[in-house]
Amino acid sequence: MANRTAGVGKFAWLNGTFVTAQEARVSPFDRGFLFADGVYEVAAVYNGQLIDLERHLERLERSLRELGYPKAPDRRQLEVMHRELVTLNGIEEGLVYLQVTRGAYGGRDFAAPAQPRLTMFAFAEGKQLLDTAAHRDGIRVIATPDIRWARRDIKSVGLLAQAMAKTEAKAAGKDDAWFVDAGGTVTEGASANAWIVTQDGDIVTRALSNDILAGVTRLAMMDLVSQTGGKIIERSFSLEEAKQAAEAFATSAVALVTPVVELDGVRIGDGAPGPVTRRMQALYRQAIGAR
Amino acid sequence: MANRTAGVGKFAWLNGTFVTAQEARVSPFDRGFLFADGVYEVAAVYNGQLIDLERHLERLERSLRELGYPKAPDRRQLEVMHRELVTLNGIEEGLVYLQVTRGAYGGRDFAAPAQPRLTMFAFAEGKQLLDTAAHRDGIRVIATPDIRWARRDIKSVGLLAQAMAKTEAKAAGKDDAWFVDAGGTVTEGASANAWIVTQDGDIVTRALSNDILAGVTRLAMMDLVSQTGGKIIERSFSLEEAKQAAEAFATSAVALVTPVVELDGVRIGDGAPGPVTRRMQALYRQAIGAR
Repeated sequence: MANRTAGVGKFAWLNGTFVTAQEARVSPFDRGFLFADGVYEVAAVYNGQLIDLERHLERLERSLRELGYPKAPDRRQLEVMHRELVTLNGIEEGLVYLQVTRGAYGGRDFAAPAQPRLTMFAFAEGKQLLDTAAHRDGIRVIATPDIRWARRDIKSVGLLAQAMAKTEAKAAGKDDAWFVDAGGTVTEGASANAWIVTQDGDIVTRALSNDILAGVTRLAMMDLVSQTGGKIIERSFSLEEAKQAAEAFATSAVALVTPVVELDGVRIGDGAPGPVTRRMQALYRQAIGAR
Repeated sequence: MANRTAGVGKFAWLNGTFVTAQEARVSPFDRGFLFADGVYEVAAVYNGQLIDLERHLERLERSLRELGYPKAPDRRQLEVMHRELVTLNGIEEGLVYLQVTRGAYGGRDFAAPAQPRLTMFAFAEGKQLLDTAAHRDGIRVIATPDIRWARRDIKSVGLLAQAMAKTEAKAAGKDDAWFVDAGGTVTEGASANAWIVTQDGDIVTRALSNDILAGVTRLAMMDLVSQTGGKIIERSFSLEEAKQAAEAFATSAVALVTPVVELDGVRIGDGAPGPVTRRMQALYRQAIGAR
């Protein structure tokens, strides 16, 4: 898969206009900058096609609704913009990032304006998604206390705890972090949903609630497994159970299905991606039309 | 107190340079915009003088340290900048807002760069702080579940829950919000520390921990009360206890000492600011040199 663009593409999009990513600017009075009053989505691109874009835009609208934004941006406009960003930047494989904030008003007032003028920003990035080392060999993940706010179902840009967790993982020489709540159960990864395969072969991921994000790739996997007559069990699992699982993996729009071979210093299974994880990867590949 | 400036002053400051507030711009790739990876301070200005600036800058440095920023901006530069913003904008009474983020890198990666290039932004605002209707008559406050993250001691720009709470208060026709944790105790206000005066005359505010911000005005009040031979009791109190208190008030750099006369629909005391609150206001006025 040859990307004409590696890294962030030259052309970004800001409030309806294509601009260069380098020159894009917003006001520091933007509520996204002052209050993290904004939400985002990341849609994968494969073979130049956006994956599950509708579901991402639906979730964006839900996030905005939950935050009391009176109306969502025009969905059709956003769809067209996504495709144009992919084309303009020559993205074969990668992602489009979209952020919507409650806008700038030249001052700072916690209370939200009744009729916001939204700020919308998007960029595209060329990036290898499939056949990465992480997909082949799996990743090593640390466990860290889930110190995030209580509305993780809203995909807000209030991502400081996630950034801290990923930074902590990197400092520990690992690849990613899974959050563990006060009760000892795994909520989700710092930017992915968390899954285990039990010794009995059950595929388990946490049920949806305010505790986790309703992952688009999580949902796609559930559909795919169900179409093949399989079953996914939605329930919480503890960090201890995860450490004793036969397999573990993470899903997100960009991680797709990434095997987890080490968790909190403990090898999962035999330390290599297991057969169920491989099956999940194959199902997802097939779904997005990869060879 | 005649401000030459009402509202946000014409001149802001961005990365070492004075610019007009209207023209100030940052990259949307700034980690402050993408991840809420930034902290802030608000220092009050009275009689053209900055109140407790050193303590604000100390707290800023602590917030940055807690987030793993390798070094703080030069404190002397920030002091001078604060004074220049006050002068340039003709602020007699108001505030200076300062935000420091981990900067922009032309891409989006959760893990923090080892050697960040900080973004620093500040503006000044002319605003009446003393002798407001809120100070005279008190404010009405709603109670709302504390859904914020677990590190409220860090003054980060991850303020979406606070913005939601203030928006909720406004929608309810009230003035502000106090957060209540899962155990039923009041943590703090959406942008102020919370205090009660018990029926026995004890002045009570929550002890410092990760649960609340170490308010600069809170600390100043503790010093002032202690200097006059009085005592403040640092302990948690429930929403129920607060509703039955003789008095309640809130402190912050901008709210100073604001009486709370209604909490969660219940009148506090006789519904008017009480004598202890008035004494606190008088002490603070005296300390900042107000008549």
